Amino acid sequence: MHATVSFDRNLPLVALNEKGQRTFFDATLDPSNPAMYASPMSIMLQSLAACSMMDIISILGKMRKEVIALDADLDAERAEKHPKVFTSIHVRFKLRSSNCSQAEFDKATGLSMNKYCSVAAMLKASGCKLSWDLEIIAD
Amino acid sequence: MHATVSFDRNLPLVALNEKGQRTFFDATLDPSNPAMYASPMSIMLQSLAACSMMDIISILGKMRKEVIALDADLDAERAEKHPKVFTSIHVRFKLRSSNCSQAEFDKATGLSMNKYCSVAAMLKASGCKLSWDLEIIAD
Repeated sequence: MHATVSFDRNLPLVALNEKGQRTFFDATLDPSNPAMYASPMSIMLQSLAACSMMDIISILGKMRKEVIALDADLDAERAEKHPKVFTSIHVRFKLRSSNCSQAEFDKATGLSMNKYCSVAAMLKASGCKLSWDLEIIAD
Repeated sequence: MHATVSFDRNLPLVALNEKGQRTFFDATLDPSNPAMYASPMSIMLQSLAACSMMDIISILGKMRKEVIALDADLDAERAEKHPKVFTSIHVRFKLRSSNCSQAEFDKATGLSMNKYCSVAAMLKASGCKLSWDLEIIAD
């Protein structure tokens, strides 16, 4: 996997991968002038939910379960000292579906977080504690 | 640190953090219809360079070194088996500057990759091998 991240006199940083897809990374250097894009650590945190949600959507699809909407709320704690790693992350997954039970949602989420999700596996291996809970909104 | 990532019937996933900053995550489900945005793992890889580049820009600024441009080329290897973690990542940092020596660039990059960069610290702790080299383009 390849990517290039570029700084050209000004933020944001522009990332470009081998498929020509762009991502922007920013930082607030001046409090009166907020950044337009999120910070690298904020985006790394989001990558966890995004990676797992791609799995969950795919697994529920194979189980013939409807996914009208799926949201993940992430809350992360960081170490106080540099390099200020994430020490724990909690994810609340919220599914809107007409035909998915709590047990089926739990199975799909567990398969992702415990087996398939690359970001979750790396964060866990780094020593970060991952936890999650689930909510289904029947539709 | 807080964020929400949302799926609403269609990709891309939209991430929104507590500062109102948005990031998009995508996946190519149909090869004839390429994704507009990058995948979670592609973006996690980019987060490494982005996090480190924010440090390097800041450290060189404190050293009164000019940063006309800074680029990072990332090459990552992944495990073949699920969860397909990154096993090694090499970063080539390229700086355009009129007054920064190789030794000064090396010092700033080392401080980031070995001490300050949160993403680098987490990836290393996960067991991923990180390496980097440097190139200066005098201006």
